[in-house]
Amino acid sequence: MAHIKLKNEELPGIVGLMHYRPETAAPLNALAEVLLRGPSTLTSGEREIIASSVSWWNNCHFCHHAHGAAAAAHLQRPPDFMDAIKAGLPNEDLSPKMRALLTIAKHVQEGGLKVTEADIASARKEGATDLEIHDTVLIAAAFCMYNRYVDGLGTWRPDPKEAYVPTGEMLAFQGYLESIPA
Amino acid sequence: MAHIKLKNEELPGIVGLMHYRPETAAPLNALAEVLLRGPSTLTSGEREIIASSVSWWNNCHFCHHAHGAAAAAHLQRPPDFMDAIKAGLPNEDLSPKMRALLTIAKHVQEGGLKVTEADIASARKEGATDLEIHDTVLIAAAFCMYNRYVDGLGTWRPDPKEAYVPTGEMLAFQGYLESIPA
Repeated sequence: MAHIKLKNEELPGIVGLMHYRPETAAPLNALAEVLLRGPSTLTSGEREIIASSVSWWNNCHFCHHAHGAAAAAHLQRPPDFMDAIKAGLPNEDLSPKMRALLTIAKHVQEGGLKVTEADIASARKEGATDLEIHDTVLIAAAFCMYNRYVDGLGTWRPDPKEAYVPTGEMLAFQGYLESIPA
Repeated sequence: MAHIKLKNEELPGIVGLMHYRPETAAPLNALAEVLLRGPSTLTSGEREIIASSVSWWNNCHFCHHAHGAAAAAHLQRPPDFMDAIKAGLPNEDLSPKMRALLTIAKHVQEGGLKVTEADIASARKEGATDLEIHDTVLIAAAFCMYNRYVDGLGTWRPDPKEAYVPTGEMLAFQGYLESIPA
């Protein structure tokens, strides 16, 4: 049971909140759509890995699994990919650029002032562009919002990772604008 | 100097970032407009106090002062109001409801899972509605994003509080949609 009385209590995580307050759902979904599915030199799979990793670091079960499932859908991986994200994807063939961007994202999650010149220089050395660095910082920052929104209101969520597979496919292939209530 | 090369380096804090990436500026400003100036039973002054307080707890100089100045503009207070926010406004006649909502905001800033049933019960006892609790959580969560965005990219900002007075008046009386680049 969420901390407030939602209109539709079966809807998990942020979905129930978006139905409760469509006025804020619209910009929240528009931001996710641009950041995770808009034109970018980072793939949507890479961007969803950043989103899911930040959510794991923030201990947000719903967002970690929903975006881990979206990453798995983009990259055609099994549900165990969600667990592998927790461990930092040690066996995944991520580019050195993506590993450097994940370090930036970790520091953003800890606090904006934790990002160092050395973090930025490492990402640049691996070929990251300014726009990729910008978007990584904003994705990490945005999930520090979404995670707090979902857990700060005590929303309900399914436990097993398999329950997130359809959500991940929906987010990956239909996108975030579909989830705005009419 | 910011960590990335902005288009207009004199623009401080989030303003330079919004000119750099108008695609993300649009939903970021739309969210702030709804949360801080949209229809609500909380006044805009109260909501800007929440925004400025969270930014202070996150050690974000730019956002703390910009939104503290907006709160001061709404409430017709002098620039010292920005410093008083740091101390939790001990001499301000805030309602018990606002004090309870600020406790919720503080816990959201620490992490979504830090918000307790007792926090919610205290706010309800002082007359807070579900929508006020929802919006308080989302304002606090959103500033955990804006603060990390501004500082994670190492943006430039003026130091003295007096420099934020015109920004505060602009945010209070013209609003957030005005700051979207054309």
